[in-house]
Amino acid sequence: MSKKILLSGVKPTGRPHIGNYFGAMRQFVELLNSGAYECYFFLADYHALNLIQNAALMRQNSLDLAVDYLAIGLDPSKAVIYKQSDVSANTEAAWIFDTLVTVPYLERAHAFKDAESKGREVNVGTFNYPVLMAADILLYDADVVPVGQDQKQHIEYARDIAQKFNNAFGRTFKLPDALILENVAVVPGIDGQKMSKSYNNTIPLFATKAEIEKAVMSIVTDSSSDLPVNVYNIHKLFKSQVELEPIYETHKGKYKILKEMLIADIESFIAPLRERREKIAADVKNIHTVLAEGAERARAKADLKLAEAKRAIGVS
Amino acid sequence: MSKKILLSGVKPTGRPHIGNYFGAMRQFVELLNSGAYECYFFLADYHALNLIQNAALMRQNSLDLAVDYLAIGLDPSKAVIYKQSDVSANTEAAWIFDTLVTVPYLERAHAFKDAESKGREVNVGTFNYPVLMAADILLYDADVVPVGQDQKQHIEYARDIAQKFNNAFGRTFKLPDALILENVAVVPGIDGQKMSKSYNNTIPLFATKAEIEKAVMSIVTDSSSDLPVNVYNIHKLFKSQVELEPIYETHKGKYKILKEMLIADIESFIAPLRERREKIAADVKNIHTVLAEGAERARAKADLKLAEAKRAIGVS
Repeated sequence: MSKKILLSGVKPTGRPHIGNYFGAMRQFVELLNSGAYECYFFLADYHALNLIQNAALMRQNSLDLAVDYLAIGLDPSKAVIYKQSDVSANTEAAWIFDTLVTVPYLERAHAFKDAESKGREVNVGTFNYPVLMAADILLYDADVVPVGQDQKQHIEYARDIAQKFNNAFGRTFKLPDALILENVAVVPGIDGQKMSKSYNNTIPLFATKAEIEKAVMSIVTDSSSDLPVNVYNIHKLFKSQVELEPIYETHKGKYKILKEMLIADIESFIAPLRERREKIAADVKNIHTVLAEGAERARAKADLKLAEAKRAIGVS
Repeated sequence: MSKKILLSGVKPTGRPHIGNYFGAMRQFVELLNSGAYECYFFLADYHALNLIQNAALMRQNSLDLAVDYLAIGLDPSKAVIYKQSDVSANTEAAWIFDTLVTVPYLERAHAFKDAESKGREVNVGTFNYPVLMAADILLYDADVVPVGQDQKQHIEYARDIAQKFNNAFGRTFKLPDALILENVAVVPGIDGQKMSKSYNNTIPLFATKAEIEKAVMSIVTDSSSDLPVNVYNIHKLFKSQVELEPIYETHKGKYKILKEMLIADIESFIAPLRERREKIAADVKNIHTVLAEGAERARAKADLKLAEAKRAIGVS
């Protein structure tokens, strides 16, 4: 029996932080290494184009994200790692799906409603996002798409669009399932809110020692309590509660010491990742080769499915 | 000096009528034969997908339109004749442009407003129509796009999108001009309204003798007048006023005779076109060859421009 297909994409919009890592990236590696899935991981650069209109930045971000993927342990000999824009079938299928859905249907998407509620004139690319995402998923016959609870709607759109197509033109697309990431504990930022680039409260995943120090020293603590909750909650990511309890008991109220211990623990976690990343980043040619090979394998898969869809609608 | 590039597309949504012919198709042939332009004529099947969700019908309509093109005299050795869906660059560029325009901007398009005013839930493909059309035009470096006065807005969208792209990423796309078709006299239908498939008042361009007779005999005449205005206005397409005036004087009030004379004039105009069409339609293999060769030439052109655009945005 052939393996189930797993697919995930990330927008190349800048450095990942430890929230991204513990929230999703680490699970990608585990899912790949489980050997249970045929895996596709892509850099969603055509989605990022809604946010980044600067060629140099786009190019750098994409390269960086590819390096990040490799550095966390996504092995390109086991997974297909590719850029979305290297597979023209993605946008072509998105157009086909555009003709199957209505404007009010897309207006119900969370991302559109959020953007609109901020009073902005929403990009058509943002509005049309769920349709390209459906293409991203459906062309690869994905069985499962690992997502956080808050991204479930994307998979529902993809399922729904697959169904609309299959109803209109005959069974062509597989209905994907969301694989809700179990360990998506909300990773707290240095201010205690959810760690998020938009809150400017992150600790970068591949941070330098100095960056770790700066971030941890900025963790907001409440002097009315002996337990620095925000420090403790981040510390939990790196040490078990059993290990932490005696430490926090011994150094009760000594925020500086506790923060220094957290710095040491983060540094010993990040250092090998960071060194691995530097090594990989130094060989730019290799990264381009990985992406070129990934693109070829992704195209082989997506082009076949697109050809099937084009026969089904009667344009070939 | 290289020739100016002229481009036009028609949706494969059924048999053309003499309104289409005198309104646009005839001018395409004249423009091509003038030798002044490098011409691209495409079958807009991905636009038609908003209307036709039936593979057999789509396939038949596309084949029919290709035959129509050849039958009216578009010579595939002089013009590039191709199917929109054979050039994946079209939809890929459309996505790129999607990220450059806003939802309110597309809501101002006539086609969207018309569709919405009818209280329908508008297809995203219809909503997004001006963006794909911009890609259809801009990827081929078109200088001129022949359109009727009522389609000028499409070209304005294409110009505007080219400008938005060029402003954001550097000069990449040429700004096309509308070439307003001078002879676009409104061709009247058999009920006196503008001839249009949606009014069900057409005379098919490649009509059989029986179809011509049936259509002409159905022309609405007003018995209060000696001059059958609707008959006369259609007759004008086939004979000059100098020729017609004595005839309509001689047979004043004799509608049946005048209609019979119109039938004869339409038949002698259509018969050679119809015969030519039958001959062309009989060789299906040749039509597929024409479209395959056209697709190759269109891709060669569009892929180059798309590659330039992808470098400009930084995805390659």
